[in-house]
Amino acid sequence: MTPGTLYLVPAPLDFGCETLAPLERVMPEATLAVAATLTHWVCENAKSTRAYLKRIHATHPLRLPLQEMQLQELPHTVHKKGDHQGHFDARPLLQAALRGENIGLVSEAGMPAIADPGSSGVRAAHELGLPVVPLVGPVSLLLALAASGLNGQSFAFVGYLPSTPAERSQRIRELEALALKTGQTQLFIETPYRNAALLQ
Amino acid sequence: MTPGTLYLVPAPLDFGCETLAPLERVMPEATLAVAATLTHWVCENAKSTRAYLKRIHATHPLRLPLQEMQLQELPHTVHKKGDHQGHFDARPLLQAALRGENIGLVSEAGMPAIADPGSSGVRAAHELGLPVVPLVGPVSLLLALAASGLNGQSFAFVGYLPSTPAERSQRIRELEALALKTGQTQLFIETPYRNAALLQ
Repeated sequence: MTPGTLYLVPAPLDFGCETLAPLERVMPEATLAVAATLTHWVCENAKSTRAYLKRIHATHPLRLPLQEMQLQELPHTVHKKGDHQGHFDARPLLQAALRGENIGLVSEAGMPAIADPGSSGVRAAHELGLPVVPLVGPVSLLLALAASGLNGQSFAFVGYLPSTPAERSQRIRELEALALKTGQTQLFIETPYRNAALLQ
Repeated sequence: MTPGTLYLVPAPLDFGCETLAPLERVMPEATLAVAATLTHWVCENAKSTRAYLKRIHATHPLRLPLQEMQLQELPHTVHKKGDHQGHFDARPLLQAALRGENIGLVSEAGMPAIADPGSSGVRAAHELGLPVVPLVGPVSLLLALAASGLNGQSFAFVGYLPSTPAERSQRIRELEALALKTGQTQLFIETPYRNAALLQ
């Protein structure tokens, strides 16, 4: 039995937006074509994965009706800040691949396992000896970095800043010192409603 | 006069490969459609930019014949390691945008200004008040990071390693210490023929 492949399926960046971009304009055709063949998914959120699959279906008919697909959510403990710490064993979520099924890994927006949950699934695939194939799609932090004009030959993505003001100031000072010393660009995530506090 | 926009146009990753992927499968349609409208380019290498434009023309007819386009190369001094240091003033390359022309910025493979020249062009656009629009396409280092299963919630891209053995060992030890201390994934570039030396 040839094992299935774990495909890393990027999602568009318009998650939660009122107006959605035509998927076939912003995603490569090969990404949508592969996604439409998959019937087993490991995802951040099953509801939004179904919504994404419906959008794919409009141009690339899905191999199975949505209600016959197997969608498994990563547990809440690995969401956002936790998936890189290696505590979650995702191998049970990939059992269908050992029966020869290809599996899609998807997050809410952008590339799974980059600034999003998913790396536990990738590690589990490597442990099980499954091929892992990343598909091309948008990655917000790289688009932002390219458009910034800042140093793209040395940069770090450092995740979220601390939410308490004292710790946040301290962390910003650390990142600033590092940037001044090494010339490295520092990228971090902040929620829109905290932008004013951040800039202060 | 409305100034033109600087579009950051990603290129496929098969630069130099014998077999080329069908462009319309691996690049989003919107990226190719915008690229086909552009008649002014700032590039790493004019010859390979012409080859890329010919591939685009096969599915998205170019607005002008190739020989009528204006292709300007970034100077060799900003290639690879130099473009982030801020010594090159790229504003003269963007003069057509002040006359209302849109301009494409492109590198040999992947996203311009990410692990590739181009950031001087982006900085110049910001200085001139031009809109900067990054288009979606493949970025090799992010695909590699996602498929690695390593920490995608804190990572650094550190460019090239030193080429002399002693300095290279020293740098690898530094990066290893940083990775062990902070959990941050370290990405760097190495040429294939040095892989054996690197792993030793």
